[in-house]
Amino acid sequence: MPAPKTPLLTVDIIIEMVDRGRRPIVLIERRHPPPGWALPGGFVDIGESLEQAARREAREETCLEVKLTRLLGCYSNPARDPRGHTVSVVYIGEARGTPRAEDDARALKLYNHDQLPEKMAFDHADILTDYQRLRDEGIVPALQ
Amino acid sequence: MPAPKTPLLTVDIIIEMVDRGRRPIVLIERRHPPPGWALPGGFVDIGESLEQAARREAREETCLEVKLTRLLGCYSNPARDPRGHTVSVVYIGEARGTPRAEDDARALKLYNHDQLPEKMAFDHADILTDYQRLRDEGIVPALQ
Repeated sequence: MPAPKTPLLTVDIIIEMVDRGRRPIVLIERRHPPPGWALPGGFVDIGESLEQAARREAREETCLEVKLTRLLGCYSNPARDPRGHTVSVVYIGEARGTPRAEDDARALKLYNHDQLPEKMAFDHADILTDYQRLRDEGIVPALQ
Repeated sequence: MPAPKTPLLTVDIIIEMVDRGRRPIVLIERRHPPPGWALPGGFVDIGESLEQAARREAREETCLEVKLTRLLGCYSNPARDPRGHTVSVVYIGEARGTPRAEDDARALKLYNHDQLPEKMAFDHADILTDYQRLRDEGIVPALQ
């Protein structure tokens, strides 16, 4: 089989800090383009599962050991990433302790769900809207 | 950014024939290796969303217009595909009418959930076990 070309595969992780009131989530300020605040995440390596990639990226960027709890959804609009067509599989997870920005993260902050940054990279604002609807109303993200 | 290498991205579709008793699902016999019965599906093209890819593959292989109803899960075990590391995003959908094998499908059959073929390609037997648990008990597939 000649190797087909498919969109690049990424994971993003909504990390809930379960040892703090209101379970704030972790956002990072990106070191590389596109700029802005974003969910921790990155490209999946060949040879690792999506879940392994999600735990690895969370560890590399936030120094947290994350227990994944749920698949939120898959985001694949060809225009969602200005670098080219990337598809993101988004997980929800839980962590405890003190996150610290490392690797591709320039800075890191905890955010409550009603006080998110105004401008976020990629389609991460939409992803967090889906997250809030799932968390508050039990509604799974709509298909496109 | 140097282009990273990530696993190849595929979609598979569990098509419920909603105009027949017991809502049987459509399986195809693969024309290309690996052999065996499988869910309709294939590689995602750059520039199309996952949902577009799922509807296109269903149309090409079964001649059905499928309405996607739900994301079942993502399957990414590096050993799941003997050709190399592929990740599959699996959707559930509904269709009516008469499916017909085309394109990469050598043959096609409708199967009730309790009479699946003994040997299936890839991890599609596991995927169908997850599907039955979701359908019958409302349990979403476990993360890996």
